[in-house]
Amino acid sequence: MGQKWTPKGKHCYLTGASQGLGLCAALQLVKDGANVSIVARDQGKLDVALKKMEAARVSPSQKLAAYSHDISTAAGAQAALEAVCTPFAGQAPDAVFLCAGNARPLYFVEAKEEDFKSQIGTLYFTALWSAWAVAKLMVCQKVKGKIVFVSSTLGLMSFVGYAPYAPMKFAIRGLADTLRSEFQLYGISVHIYFPAGMFTPGYEEENKVKPAITKKIEEQDKACQPEEAAAVLIKGVKNGTYSIAGDFNTMVFRATTQSSSPFGNIFVKFAFEVIGWFGVPIWRWGVDADVRKYAPEHEAYLKQKGFFENEGK
Amino acid sequence: MGQKWTPKGKHCYLTGASQGLGLCAALQLVKDGANVSIVARDQGKLDVALKKMEAARVSPSQKLAAYSHDISTAAGAQAALEAVCTPFAGQAPDAVFLCAGNARPLYFVEAKEEDFKSQIGTLYFTALWSAWAVAKLMVCQKVKGKIVFVSSTLGLMSFVGYAPYAPMKFAIRGLADTLRSEFQLYGISVHIYFPAGMFTPGYEEENKVKPAITKKIEEQDKACQPEEAAAVLIKGVKNGTYSIAGDFNTMVFRATTQSSSPFGNIFVKFAFEVIGWFGVPIWRWGVDADVRKYAPEHEAYLKQKGFFENEGK
Repeated sequence: MGQKWTPKGKHCYLTGASQGLGLCAALQLVKDGANVSIVARDQGKLDVALKKMEAARVSPSQKLAAYSHDISTAAGAQAALEAVCTPFAGQAPDAVFLCAGNARPLYFVEAKEEDFKSQIGTLYFTALWSAWAVAKLMVCQKVKGKIVFVSSTLGLMSFVGYAPYAPMKFAIRGLADTLRSEFQLYGISVHIYFPAGMFTPGYEEENKVKPAITKKIEEQDKACQPEEAAAVLIKGVKNGTYSIAGDFNTMVFRATTQSSSPFGNIFVKFAFEVIGWFGVPIWRWGVDADVRKYAPEHEAYLKQKGFFENEGK
Repeated sequence: MGQKWTPKGKHCYLTGASQGLGLCAALQLVKDGANVSIVARDQGKLDVALKKMEAARVSPSQKLAAYSHDISTAAGAQAALEAVCTPFAGQAPDAVFLCAGNARPLYFVEAKEEDFKSQIGTLYFTALWSAWAVAKLMVCQKVKGKIVFVSSTLGLMSFVGYAPYAPMKFAIRGLADTLRSEFQLYGISVHIYFPAGMFTPGYEEENKVKPAITKKIEEQDKACQPEEAAAVLIKGVKNGTYSIAGDFNTMVFRATTQSSSPFGNIFVKFAFEVIGWFGVPIWRWGVDADVRKYAPEHEAYLKQKGFFENEGK
């Protein structure tokens, strides 16, 4: 420990990096002198992102590239990884940042089959299949690289409205906790980041479908800029931190759900645990009361949407 | 509160209940005088299970039934629910126990695409689609029923070998935490059970594929009988407990990852937190050391399996 990781000259691969957190992290790694490859679906957004990366380059020898792939399938993730590694003679990346994802908050009884499936695809499968492809390559080539997962505050706790989303962010936490243990077999290090809400294009989309009660519960929360969130992420990875969080609320919730994952400074851990021990139950009582109070309004909403006549179909 | 839930005369629907925990829970509910419907895939096992249920009946008026359905798809879960509700004039069950599941512990780099997908199907989709179908029906009919999820100790923590499994048990926790909050809108109560290893037919299957290092880490753990585990589950549901656990180790791990979910007695909570605060990091250090020590043996194993020549494919 003590030895900080430096991105300079390393090959960093970021998924979901044509916008939002992923792009901001990519730009910071470019500024740090890394070779940076990004993957996302939308070619138009990738073109814009690559121009921003070019503008941020600090050396003419940096390799910067953007590839359009759908990485929600195992084959897609494998193809994306192969494309990304080609300019590096097939060598595995030194660090992989699994930033792909979006949120579709909906009432459970109103969500459609496709809503659950699409969240599993964009949240869990993008992380799983890329981590799997990268890990196999790293193990074969004996690359002691880094695999960085991105969960969410909602991977640590959840409440009304997040049934299609939060379980997949919990799943990413479970995967990271497993692989942190398992990849000690290979010297591969695993990190997981728990960002809170960010002002990203995805956040705007999310708010269009978000249930009214969920918005009400979140009305005190302040979203942060993705640049700040990316800075927290990169700093955590440089420091070798397993579980990375940057905002106070997330740190409080995390302290109440640390389980067997490694923590940093034990005094900081304890301080947040004490805050969480009192604060989190109080938060829950308040939110539970809000949800129950909202029940008649919600029933009226369902009625107006024709839910009862259609028998929930 | 104070008022205990009684299964007598209620309609209880259990998934994955042709063997193991699900069957034991079904039998106990039969003995409690409930009308019990079970669903699983294997008709032969269902026939045997139904015979056992018939033998356990306490009243001639109890409706006992077994249906063969694959509930890993939304359509399958919907069809199963409709079948189960038919003898009750389409009325939603009073309580649903989502016991379906199996474990396939494997090394992450050795698992195949199908291993991950099948665990998502048998663990997460079976719980999600049935909960979804049932919830919509309960909401439409204004049935203030119970939905009981089954996670695992490995939904609270994880380690080497459980990459296909643990993330889905984490996901079930995320789903239950969300729905506990959300279903206050409808008066539907949500429960989640975290059983440790049980001596079930599934457990034997699981041990056939379990990685050597995972077995080594677990060699001190004692699996329990599914009858005992089912008794803990039913007791928890009767008492109205949200988060149900029966064994000491699980209770310690749970105390370290309570997050915003409700707890029982605050003094018991605190006692387990203190034990976990010291015990869990010590457990992790020991396991981490075991994993690192095992690395050369694991590399030899991968070599012998041809992993490096085949480039992990």
